[in-house]
This record gives sequence, structure tokens and C-alpha cells, in this order.
Amino acid sequence: MKVAVIGVGLIGGSFALALKQAKAVSHVVGVGRNAANLKLALERGIIDSTAPDPAAAARDADLVLIAAPVAQFPAIFDSLKESKALITDGGSTKRDVIAAARKALGKKIARFVPAHPIAGAEKSGAAAASAELFRGRRVVLTPLPENAKGNVARVEETWKRCGAQVARMDPEEHDAVLAVVSHLPHILAYALVHGVARRNNSAQLFSFAAGGFRDFTRIASSHPEMWRDICLANRDRLLQEMKSYANELGSIRKLIAKGDAAGLEKLFAAARDARNKWIHSS
Amino acid sequence: MKVAVIGVGLIGGSFALALKQAKAVSHVVGVGRNAANLKLALERGIIDSTAPDPAAAARDADLVLIAAPVAQFPAIFDSLKESKALITDGGSTKRDVIAAARKALGKKIARFVPAHPIAGAEKSGAAAASAELFRGRRVVLTPLPENAKGNVARVEETWKRCGAQVARMDPEEHDAVLAVVSHLPHILAYALVHGVARRNNSAQLFSFAAGGFRDFTRIASSHPEMWRDICLANRDRLLQEMKSYANELGSIRKLIAKGDAAGLEKLFAAARDARNKWIHSS
Repeated sequence: MKVAVIGVGLIGGSFALALKQAKAVSHVVGVGRNAANLKLALERGIIDSTAPDPAAAARDADLVLIAAPVAQFPAIFDSLKESKALITDGGSTKRDVIAAARKALGKKIARFVPAHPIAGAEKSGAAAASAELFRGRRVVLTPLPENAKGNVARVEETWKRCGAQVARMDPEEHDAVLAVVSHLPHILAYALVHGVARRNNSAQLFSFAAGGFRDFTRIASSHPEMWRDICLANRDRLLQEMKSYANELGSIRKLIAKGDAAGLEKLFAAARDARNKWIHSS
Repeated sequence: MKVAVIGVGLIGGSFALALKQAKAVSHVVGVGRNAANLKLALERGIIDSTAPDPAAAARDADLVLIAAPVAQFPAIFDSLKESKALITDGGSTKRDVIAAARKALGKKIARFVPAHPIAGAEKSGAAAASAELFRGRRVVLTPLPENAKGNVARVEETWKRCGAQVARMDPEEHDAVLAVVSHLPHILAYALVHGVARRNNSAQLFSFAAGGFRDFTRIASSHPEMWRDICLANRDRLLQEMKSYANELGSIRKLIAKGDAAGLEKLFAAARDARNKWIHSS
């Protein structure tokens, strides 16, 4: 199997490495905007060759993985409209990606099986790629009505060869769920760090930040462009979740302001119990 | 040195274990509300004996550590008013603790050297105590005008024997700084988990939560009573920080709503850069 990877970063590079480790691929061609990153990907053996654009990379590929920030997807799909390869992707949002594919590919959209590997990290680029990134992690497929069953099965099998556990979901449901458990927390972490960084005494504040702050804000070290695109692609859902979160904070603010000790302890205990139940079951 | 530990949980238990490991203590007596926890502390060799109340524990102790949730401090100080031992504490807030000490101890407050070990964890109780908890962590002393220099030095030395790096700060400043880098993030994490847990589809949401969510919410597994007390003790500062954070979120909401891609990327990049600078310097 010959694979083309559009965007040889954390996700694209790890996909290539995992398939190579599984001996599921004979040749990987990479495309990217950053020449130094592509050079590193060649040096690390993540890719075997480069191509100047997605069309050239896909020319004799069996499978194309699009793993770029989602705002680049429309141009990439446009470049892939003559390709006969099966296409999957690593985009964190699915409604916008599918709409872009539908617009650019027309009837050829049957060859695109959308996917989202829930396997981010705060590190990015080919330097951060790892054959183990997807091991035990979930990959959500959001198959389209146009997809042939065999193609969905092939894409599913490919992600499984990367070590992933594959789930299927409706694209609407995917974007709603991820807004809550992924997109919102990223915004909250960026907001906290930004709020600290712009203070006059930010150096002092950071110097007394400890392990709780470090873990809470780990995702604020994530790729700014990627998260910019996710925020805009899933805008409606994210705004709704931000409103819901603001209401939740408002309720806690009221409990604190009126000194409702029992109410605060009950809320904190409910949160702790729910989290511990999740941690112990996962 | 004979030490009395009031509240043999994560902080109190770790203090005892660290001093024992450093051979800085000959006997540790423990006081606590939970008999099973005290039994475990005896079995683990954290404490050597128990006492029914702080007054009895302090009777022939050289040093008393108060490591209970801060709402219990007034009663504990009241019980210690006849003691001649040096007193320090592990309270996460300092203004309220000092006010309680001043009220209960009167002129004897000179014997109390307030401290805050910034070494929390989401686990609690004697089971979670570790001789290594304070190693390399910061302990903030907020000495009082009444403290003799020698007593401050003795308390500082004791925390250093636990492996801690000791800093000194004004109590007002301490509570302002910790509101930003510790108390606020705990509230934000509790709010996120609570907001997820009370949904109809919470099981589905948790099942698609990954490493980012897990780390962001780690501190939402913290001790509910302890955090209830901190929120109320540092109420004014925390409400101010919650307001400031709501404003920060409001700014991001506006950028998303108006589709300001450049503004979002700039904000995320500023946060990422500030965090990475902190991580690499710490």
C-alpha cells in the first residue's frame, strides 16, 4: 500500500510511523508547507519521498490522509478532485470537513471516509510523531451515505493497524461531543494562561504555579493555528458550550458569594465522584 | 524533636514521613477526626501515637503542624492556646488562618509561624502521604511581626528538612497570588466536570474524553471539603479572579463569534509561548 500524507505533523507523521511499524505500507509520500519539517520527516524515516502538492502526492497513492489544520481542507480537497485514491483525514471537526469535501469532490465524495483520531498532544510537528501515538486511543469514523461499505471497512482497518480503537458516529453528534470534552477545555486553558501572562506580576504568578496549574494548562501549549481553525469550524457548538460553562461558573460564583458551604461541598463532591468513576472505568 | 500533627492527611502525613526520613524527629503524635485514617497512619508508621485533641497532642510537643481544612483552624487554635510549642500550618489560605490564630491565641500568636506548602495532589488521607511530597516544592512562609527571628528560622529549617524550597511573602500577597494560580483553576476544573456529569449523555461524553480532559480535570478529584473551605476563606480574591476570568472568556467568545481568525491565533500563541517559557524555566 502506498500512502500520501498531507501535513506531516504529529497526527500525519504518527500515522505513517504506525503503519510502517505494522508493515502495512510500502511507501509514504509527504506534503507540507514547512520545508524544514518535511526534511526532518525524511530524516526520521517517517516519509520516503515528498511531493509539491496534494495532487502530485495522491497520483499513485492507494490512500491519502489529510492531517492539516482544518481551514486548509477546502484547498486540499480541491487539489485531490482528480485523484482515485481512498481518502481519510485527521480533522478534529467533521461537519465543516465534510461540507468542504462535498463542495470540492462532488460525486467523488464517496471515496472520502472522514475520521478523527482523538489523540492530540501539546507537541506538534514531525519531531513529535510517534508510532505509538494511536495505541489504545479512540478514532471516530463519521461515514457518509455515499461511502461503499468496503471503503469504510478499509479505512477502519487502517486505523486499527495503527493501534486505535475505532468508533462510528454521526458528524453532528461528533462535533457536539467534542465541543464539550475537547474544544471547550482547550479554550479554558488558553484563557487561564493568557489571563496570567498579561498581568504585570506574571513572573511572580508563574513562579508559584505548581503541578495542578501545569496539568490544567498542558493543552494551552497546543498548536495555535490548529485550534484557531477548530474554534471557527465548530463555532456554533463551541459558543453554546462556552455559554453553558459560563452558567456553571456563575452558579459556583453565587455559592461562594453567599457563603453556601454545603452547596459548594456537594458540587465539588459530585464533580470528584464523577471524575473518579470515569478514571477508574477507563 | 517531638512533633504533633493535627490532621494526618496528605500534607500532615507527608510532613511526618519526611521529617522521619530526615531523622529530624523522635516522636510524632497525630490527631484526627477519622479513626480509620489514624489507624492507617499508625500502621504505616507515619505517627507513633494518637491524642484525643490538639491540646493533649501539643502538651509536650516541640512543634505542632496544623494540616486540617482551614475552616477547622479556629477550634484548633482555641485548643492550642495553653500550649508552649512552636506552631506552623499547611493551610492554603493565610489571611483567614492568621486572623483565627490572632483571635484564639492573643499575645501567644508569636509562637505561630504561618506556612503554605504548595504541594497538593488530587489524592488525600494518610494513604496518600509520602516522604517525597515536598521535595523540590515551594513552601511559602508568611511570618508575623510578632514572630521572633529564631522561631521563623526554626520553622523554615523544618520545612527545608522536608525537602522544600522556602519562600517568604506577605499574607495578603500570598492569598492574591494563590487565588490566580491555584484556587481559580480548581474551580474551573470542578465546573467543567460538574457541567459534563449533569448531562443526560454524560456517559457518552466521558467515553470520548481523552488525555487533555484527564489532565485538565485532575484537580477536580481534589478533596471537596478542603476546597470548600479555601473558596470561602479566600472569597473576596477568588470572586475577583472569577470575574477577571469571565472577562477573558468573554473576549475569546467575541473573537470566535465574529470569526476573528488572526485575533484567535494571536491569543492562543501568546498563551502557548508564555506557558512554554514557564515550563522550560521551571
